[in-house]
Amino acid sequence: MVRFDIISCVPELLKSPFEHSILKRAIDKGLTEVKVHNLRDYAVNKHKTVDDYAYGGGAGMVLQIEPIDRCIQALKSERTYDDIIYMSPDGELLTQRLANGLAMKGNMILLCGHYKGVDERVRQHLITREISVGDFVLSGGELAAAIVCDAVIRLIPGVLNDETSALTDSFQDDLIAPPVYSRPADYKGMKVPDVLLSGNDALIDDWRHEQSVQRTKERRPNLL
Amino acid sequence: MVRFDIISCVPELLKSPFEHSILKRAIDKGLTEVKVHNLRDYAVNKHKTVDDYAYGGGAGMVLQIEPIDRCIQALKSERTYDDIIYMSPDGELLTQRLANGLAMKGNMILLCGHYKGVDERVRQHLITREISVGDFVLSGGELAAAIVCDAVIRLIPGVLNDETSALTDSFQDDLIAPPVYSRPADYKGMKVPDVLLSGNDALIDDWRHEQSVQRTKERRPNLL
Repeated sequence: MVRFDIISCVPELLKSPFEHSILKRAIDKGLTEVKVHNLRDYAVNKHKTVDDYAYGGGAGMVLQIEPIDRCIQALKSERTYDDIIYMSPDGELLTQRLANGLAMKGNMILLCGHYKGVDERVRQHLITREISVGDFVLSGGELAAAIVCDAVIRLIPGVLNDETSALTDSFQDDLIAPPVYSRPADYKGMKVPDVLLSGNDALIDDWRHEQSVQRTKERRPNLL
Repeated sequence: MVRFDIISCVPELLKSPFEHSILKRAIDKGLTEVKVHNLRDYAVNKHKTVDDYAYGGGAGMVLQIEPIDRCIQALKSERTYDDIIYMSPDGELLTQRLANGLAMKGNMILLCGHYKGVDERVRQHLITREISVGDFVLSGGELAAAIVCDAVIRLIPGVLNDETSALTDSFQDDLIAPPVYSRPADYKGMKVPDVLLSGNDALIDDWRHEQSVQRTKERRPNLL
């Protein structure tokens, strides 16, 4: 079973994403586990600080190696991990393919940086993998970790009410999903394409495939 | 001033990311505004539903056009928007450059899809732009919208305690940030590079620049 242990120095940021909607239902159904660990619980000083200035000077604080090492060791003493992942803007880019791969795994740690990031020795020695959600900088890895959990957990069989729903998502067949429409058929003169109202399933399937290919050519030619 | 109006049918998902850390401080200091609007408040039926089946059949519900139109019109009656953005996996990819651009804007709407997405007519007629945080599918646009807010708001002058901190982030000069280290200098035999302990600022700057270029070549050659 996919289990995420998320390590963060601001765990309260991660509260609401797991307490509502699909992620909450997946956890409630026992289809996955997500635990958020407060890095400050592994601080080694009485002020519970886990960051310090960067050697060599410069702006921004660095998360120190010792609390992170202590936290990871404590988690590893409880269970075996398939991957210890650091969320980093320069890591391997999250794609649907990567999410599919993670959905086949068991226990994973997601380590969130904050401020200027973690001490480089953590990246060299304590983790097994680095994942990025894109070429942009965030104030911390927390939202990125939540994104990884969401992208992966919704793929676990039984999590979505209708299992075919995830299979027809964008990227699953290297195509972008076709346009969707719902009621009313005419809204202020904006109309739903006739084919979708035709009741002819074969025609509808063809139209959707054409739309997918067309949209992929326009928006993500790299997928083709 | 940058202001985000986020439209969502599960606004409770977006609670904690804006109530802590950097985003909260930016809001408290009056440097930005973020308001989350519940799409269900604009529902047109007594059950407050805002989604319905897709025309033409298939799995997954579609967010209907009418509540979205009503919500956007209500917001537009209050203020003028620079952009009305739909968070979509096939939209324009969020990059640091795009985040920099958004940080120069004023009022923006971020419309979050959920389930199979929004009625296509919303995308054709009611929005001005589509942004994606990456080539993967999420259960909704909420986390993606939070990512956009985080990436943009931290760039606003005064939001980070030390303004030079954001300028030395990855991607800002098309280079990945260099490694950072903090105390202790020797942890279980893992050592901080001597140059960072040398006190020689010129040497340290050179080393950091070399490390940045090297890391960018290895990890994001497309940036060079």
